[in-house]
Order: sequence, then C-alpha cells, then structure tokens
Amino acid sequence: MAKFLTSKEENYAQWYNDLVIKAGLAENSVVRGCMVIKPYGYALWEKIQQQLDVMFKETGHSNAYFPLLIPKSFFSKEASHVEGFAKECAVVTHYRLKNDPGGNGVTVDPAARLEEEYVIRPTSETIIWNTYRDWIQSYRDLPILCNQWANVMRWEMRTRLFLRTAEFLWQEGHTAHATREEAVEEANKMIKVYAEFAEKWMAMPVIVGHKSESERFAGALDTLAIEALMQDGKALQAGTSHFLGQNFARAFDVTFASMEGTREYVWSTSWGVSTRLIGALIMAHSDDNGLVLPPRLAPLQVVIVPIYKGNDGLERIRSRAGEIMKELRAAGISVQFDDRDTRKPGWKFADYELKGVPVRLAIGERDLENGTVEVFRRDTLAKETLPAEGIARHVAGLLDEIQENIYRKAARFRDAMTTRVDSYEEFKRLLDEKGGFFLCHWDGTAETEALVKEETKATIRCIPWDAPVEDGACMVTGRPSRRRVLFARAY
Amino acid sequence: MAKFLTSKEENYAQWYNDLVIKAGLAENSVVRGCMVIKPYGYALWEKIQQQLDVMFKETGHSNAYFPLLIPKSFFSKEASHVEGFAKECAVVTHYRLKNDPGGNGVTVDPAARLEEEYVIRPTSETIIWNTYRDWIQSYRDLPILCNQWANVMRWEMRTRLFLRTAEFLWQEGHTAHATREEAVEEANKMIKVYAEFAEKWMAMPVIVGHKSESERFAGALDTLAIEALMQDGKALQAGTSHFLGQNFARAFDVTFASMEGTREYVWSTSWGVSTRLIGALIMAHSDDNGLVLPPRLAPLQVVIVPIYKGNDGLERIRSRAGEIMKELRAAGISVQFDDRDTRKPGWKFADYELKGVPVRLAIGERDLENGTVEVFRRDTLAKETLPAEGIARHVAGLLDEIQENIYRKAARFRDAMTTRVDSYEEFKRLLDEKGGFFLCHWDGTAETEALVKEETKATIRCIPWDAPVEDGACMVTGRPSRRRVLFARAY
Repeated sequence: MAKFLTSKEENYAQWYNDLVIKAGLAENSVVRGCMVIKPYGYALWEKIQQQLDVMFKETGHSNAYFPLLIPKSFFSKEASHVEGFAKECAVVTHYRLKNDPGGNGVTVDPAARLEEEYVIRPTSETIIWNTYRDWIQSYRDLPILCNQWANVMRWEMRTRLFLRTAEFLWQEGHTAHATREEAVEEANKMIKVYAEFAEKWMAMPVIVGHKSESERFAGALDTLAIEALMQDGKALQAGTSHFLGQNFARAFDVTFASMEGTREYVWSTSWGVSTRLIGALIMAHSDDNGLVLPPRLAPLQVVIVPIYKGNDGLERIRSRAGEIMKELRAAGISVQFDDRDTRKPGWKFADYELKGVPVRLAIGERDLENGTVEVFRRDTLAKETLPAEGIARHVAGLLDEIQENIYRKAARFRDAMTTRVDSYEEFKRLLDEKGGFFLCHWDGTAETEALVKEETKATIRCIPWDAPVEDGACMVTGRPSRRRVLFARAY
Repeated sequence: MAKFLTSKEENYAQWYNDLVIKAGLAENSVVRGCMVIKPYGYALWEKIQQQLDVMFKETGHSNAYFPLLIPKSFFSKEASHVEGFAKECAVVTHYRLKNDPGGNGVTVDPAARLEEEYVIRPTSETIIWNTYRDWIQSYRDLPILCNQWANVMRWEMRTRLFLRTAEFLWQEGHTAHATREEAVEEANKMIKVYAEFAEKWMAMPVIVGHKSESERFAGALDTLAIEALMQDGKALQAGTSHFLGQNFARAFDVTFASMEGTREYVWSTSWGVSTRLIGALIMAHSDDNGLVLPPRLAPLQVVIVPIYKGNDGLERIRSRAGEIMKELRAAGISVQFDDRDTRKPGWKFADYELKGVPVRLAIGERDLENGTVEVFRRDTLAKETLPAEGIARHVAGLLDEIQENIYRKAARFRDAMTTRVDSYEEFKRLLDEKGGFFLCHWDGTAETEALVKEETKATIRCIPWDAPVEDGACMVTGRPSRRRVLFARAY
C-alpha cells in the first residue's frame, strides 16, 4: 500500500496536518487563520452535534440564537472578561462598500462608519446576559437553560486545523439560576455530559477537574474541564464548563424577585465544546495508515468493495452485497457499496483506511462460490474470511467491539503515560523523556504555577475531581499540599 | 379568552409583530437590525432544517462549511455580483481592541488595521468558488454538490423580524457541474425540492417560476423562485435557485479537463432558503388567536391539560394522560402534559392557542368518570368530547387532517385571490381594492416592468413554470405577449 502520510514517529505535527488534509476533513482557506471544513470533516461534526444535541435536550436545554455582533462597549462591562477576551478579535467598523473612484474594484465607504464598533463574538456571555435582563423578572422565569450552536471568532496568531483556528464552530450553553447551588450543580452536570460523550462516543478517556485560578475562563469563579491525552504525550482540553457566579448578572444588571420578595442577582453558568473535538478525535486514535474513527461517530461505518473481472461478476457481487446492506441498514448501520470502475480495489482499500471507515468487507468471485466474505477491521488492521451467512449480525457486534477496543487502547496508553512524580528535577527530566500526564503535589500558588510553566512549558491541566486527599510537599517549593494535581504540556 | 394580539384586520403588520414577540419566537436585539431567535422560534427552525437536510441528502448533497469572512477584493471579481451585493454589508477593518488610554473601557487599536478588509458574507459564491478552484482538476472531480448551513449578514435599512433582518440564518447550496444541461437540471431539481417542502411540510401552496431579468440574483443567468401568498394579499418569495452559468467559474478561473481532453469552465448553481420561511409560515396560516402551525413542523404537536381540584384528582388524570402520551410517543408524535399549578386551565388554553399547538386534549375529573377526553383542534378552533378509548389513534389521524386542512384553506385563499386581468386600469384598481396575485400579459421589457413597479409598487413575482402559451397583449403597452406572468405587491 502506498503510504500517504508522514509517519507519527517522524513528525507528529506534520502527520496530523497531512492526515487532516489527505483524509479530506479540512483545509486552510484564503482568510487568515480560517479553515474550510470539507464534506467528510463536516459529516463528522454533524455526528458529534447530533449526539450532543440529544444529550443537551435530555438534560432540559433548548437551543436559541443570539447575534453574531457584539457592541464594543459590552466587553468592558465585566472587568476580568475584557482582560481575557476583548483584545484579539475581528472588529466591524463600517457598513458599506462603494465603487472605487479610481475604478479599482470596491473600497470601504468612509461615510458609512459605525458610531460604535461591533466585535464578532469570541463568545456570547455579554450579548446573552444583556438579553436575559428582559427575560427575567421573577423566580418564576428561572431557570433559563439555553444552548446556541454557532460560529465564533478569535484572532489567533498561530493556528492549526481544528485545534486552533480564528473562526470555529461550537456550542455554548448559557444558563441562569435562582441560587448558587443550582448553578454549581448545572456546571457540574454539563462537564459530566461532556465526559460521557468523550468516553462513550469519542472512545476517548478524559480526566475531569477544576482549572487552577490562573487558567480559569475570563469572568468565571470556577472552570471545570475535561482533559484528554494525545498520542504524542501532550494534553488537550476538550471541553469546559464554567460557574460564573453573579458576575455577568452584576455586569448587565440582571436581577429577579425571589420567592421571599427580595431582589437578587441571577446566578449563571456557561459551557462549550467546539470543532476542536475533531482534532482531539484524530490525535487520540489515528495511525500512520490514516484515521481511526470510533464506529459511533464514523460518518460511514461499513464499506463493501467488490473484487471482480467483467460485468457479470460485478452484478453477482452486487446482488450479494445488496442483501448484506439491507440487513445492516435495518440494524441502523451506515454502509456503502463502492462499485467505481475508475479505481482498483487496492487503491480503495488504502483510501478507506485513510478515511477511517471502521469495517471493510471485500467480496470476490471466489467468495461467491465459497459463500464467504473478507472482513477487515480498521482499528487492528486484522483481516479474516467468514461465512456470508449471518455476516450482518457479525458486523454489528464487531462495530461495538471496535468502539470498546479503541477506548481500551486509549485508556491503557493514558494510564501508562500518567506518572506520579515528587521531585521537580525528575518532573523536568520525564517531561522531556516520556511526556504525558504527571500527578504532582503543588503548593496552590499562582507563583509556583507560573514558574513551572515558564521553565518547562507544562501547565496545571486540572485539579482532578476524584483526586484523593493525600498529604505531601509541593515538588517545587516543598510547601505542604493536600492533593496531587495534573500537569502536562498541552495543545 | 384574553386577546393578546392586535387583530389582523385592524393592522396586519402590527398583528405579525405582536405575534412573533408574544408567541416567544423572536425579538429585536440591541444590535441594529439583528434579532434574537428565542427557543420556541429556534425549535421551529430546527424542524425546518431537519426536513430540508434530509431532502438535500436524498438528492445527493453533502454539507460543508466555508469562512464567515470574505476578502473585499473578491466582490469585484464578478461584475454583476458586486452591483447586487457588495454595497450594504458589515466590513471588518481591524483585528484588535486595546484598553482606552483615558480609562474608558476599550477602543479599537489603530495599529491592528488589516491590510485588506474583510466583508461578513452576505452570500458565499465568491469564497466558495475561490475554494473550488483547488478541488476541481478534471471531469472526475465533478459534480460537487455542497450545501452550507450558516449565518449571513446584509446591512438592511428597514428590518422586520424573520422577514428581513441584517443577520439571518440560512442554507446555501453551491454546486459545480461539467455541463450546462446538468447545472440547469440541478437548479430545477432544487426549486422543486423547495416547492415540495413548502407544500407538504409548511402546508403553503407556492407558484414556481422564473424571475424576470431585472429581479434575478446578482450573477445568475436564470433565477427560479417559489412565491407564496400571505393573508394580507401580498406575495412572499420563499426560496430561490439560481443557474449561474460559467460566471463564477470565469471570475475565479475554475476550469476542468473534460473527458475529451479540452479545458472548460465549470457550470454552477446556487440555491437557498432562510429563517424568512418562519415569517412566511406565520403569515400564511395564523389568526387573531395566535399561531396556526402545520403539525409536521410544530415543535409540540399535542398538549394535555388537566382540569382538577386537589392533588388526588391530578394524580388520577396524570395516570390517564400517561397512557395516552405513551401511545402518542410510540407513534412518533410529540406531546406534553402541562401540570403547572401556577396557571389556570383557561390561561393555558389561550397560551397554547397563541403558540399554535395543533391539538389540545383536556381531561377533567368528569372525563375520568365518563371515560372521555375533550379534543380541541387549533386550525378550526373546534372542540369535541370523545371516548378515551382509541384516542391516540384518533389524534394521529387528526394531525394529518389538520395538515391537509391548513393547506387546503391556504390554497383556496390563494386561488380566490388570483385574478386574471387584461387592463392596466383594472389592475391598478384591484391591486388596491383586493390585492393578491395577478396574472397579466407583459411585453417582456424591463421598461414596462419598471413603470408598473414605480406606479403601483407591484412587481413581476415570476413567470410561472406551468403558464400555458396564450397569445395576448401587454396590459400596459399593448404589445404582443405569449404568456401571462405573475404580478403582486410583495414583502
């Protein structure tokens, strides 16, 4: 088989970029830092969206849509938010073009300058809380549980397809509650939804925990995150859920009449995942032959490739394939029959491996005689010849097995790459030699955190939710610590 | 029942605006001309999206995503496109804000001026055809059948919720073909998809036809449209499909090696519908009590309201309602049980009428004794008491009947409001007295069309596809005409 890709070992970053482009997922566009999501990549995003949307609705949320543009002044209303967000973003200053007087196409019409500039949303807390003010009068109007599927834009300097792009697609949940407890519970609930989605659908084990204060979302009192480990030993933050306290309610003056008749500020959360998940999915599972997709998110789960000479052979194989497809589709499995005569079977095999189709069936004329089918599974690259009888049932089971196997493999890797370290010297050495997650004691100060980041480029990914209480000494300062936190270099 | 709305008769525009706001569909935002689509309005859009997306996929299309921003220079590449589009749009000139030196929040950083400004897409032909150039080398790469679900922005001066807003949500199909015939066929196919959706799902009869040259999309050789009639006698263009010839291929230099080995420009189409469909849906069917929604698009199809005294009564009704809900859900029908004790049944009845829920079931304690249920249908406002036995099957049939009845009612209205007129005087008189659609002879010139528009505000909505050949004389100039065209005042 022709190798399409740079190998992972040789150059992980190049392998990733090659894979995204050659599998037809996305490409860079002519617009700085913005990507084009190609049909195969978008199909993957649709699968992600569909399942998350079901999970959001099951937890009581509704979708809504708020404006793309945000008045510039909104960003300075919440003090820490402006520090974190308002700086690198696209600013709309005019609302009209006109023909260039010199005949050179079009030019911005200076007469059409906006009185107040708009910013293309980098996130929507400000515009949404400005809107919620009119929706909330009393406790009877609460909770508000809204989600938005939208594009957002952050003028990133260094971009990488899916992982960090100026424009990206995401969902952002924004909820409003009468009590602190209810808002905290909501933030916790949604990070659990993300963790469940990552593990059960993306087959990607994650660690759930709190961000340290310096890594929190701008404007949050607490940020929860799910952290996954990529195959190069770097961490990737795959989703966050924020407890925002009353910060945005205060900034936008959103109050409600409580059951007791007092006037209170509303409590809030926000939570989001983005097209970055596609990058995570690729880097968690794929190999030098191409994508390895978990069956539950694969746009195409099964492909049937005929191996034939002449038209008669093809028609006999088509008829056998038709029966199998009918059974698979009845079981809710997506399947295609690739009868293109412009490509040889070997080329097709390599192409479907590149695209990560979980199961490939090949049927040749000999198989027809013998009543067999060749079954290839993408995760292990194993091939076996099986009776055609009952093949659909077998494939259905195989898809489940692949889903589990991909998860187990990633979990084994993650466990093997998680190291408990007590000395800063060892930490620095293993960070370079091995990489991965490190569970270390930390004195809880932003100074120590900043020092580690400066010296090693590793950051505190999270303070794991399930970290047991364990007395120890900060690996850097020796000061006392009561639990280990998760360090890693990250995307 | 309390009347929430201005009546249609009294002030149609006010009735529409009241209804959109009071039914909780959308509201104006603080951003000029942009709306907030509230959860109930967005649920309606999701129903529309889901069905259209199925129809697009059944006709072989895939979704993809292209950048929000378009380099300014792209607009001047296709001569007629720039005339039609590039002028009133949001222009991004800077990519950074900074803290105001005077301490007044944030200000645009003059050092972060873009070398070339970007325009927020008003439509995506230019950026997509610039991308397709790299996707297309030979006839083997064709056709490309892409659709995009996205937000777009046009700096409209006068806006109305859903009907005309600066930002709106839509889908835009962009296809590339090897031959003129195939592209023409695609444009025809998609306008038929829109017509089928409008009639079967929105229960809204439409007339399909060609736009006159002066009403064509900027850059199109032919624009097909579906035109619907609203209850105030004005027309609404609900969807368009454009045959773009080789215009965008030439503008962006997109060629392919043909099967014969020659180098040819690619042929193209584009087609779209938007959140404007929600406005059409409302204005086609609703009444002074609120929304009338076709069951196939209603976010909630059935509601059950208990009428009870005390908790015991409620629990007995809940148990009966539970059985009915189980049966309805098994039949794929959405249903809710409204047991809120903060609202009286009369208030709930009015609220569900306002929201257009197609069927309301009421169950009182007497109904439990008698084994009955009160069934209310939103379209006719008719109420009857029926045996509880078999009620789910009855409701399923009733939803179909309501869907058909809404369509028939709209079709009867449309037919009654379509007038064949041969004299320009009568045309002008009836336009004011009666309104609606007018089938008239026209000499085919842009001058006559412009004159009619200037004098009457009526425009040629389309040259109906199925207009029979009929020799006649232009109602304005008396010059010969071979078929009648459709005139109306329009949204």
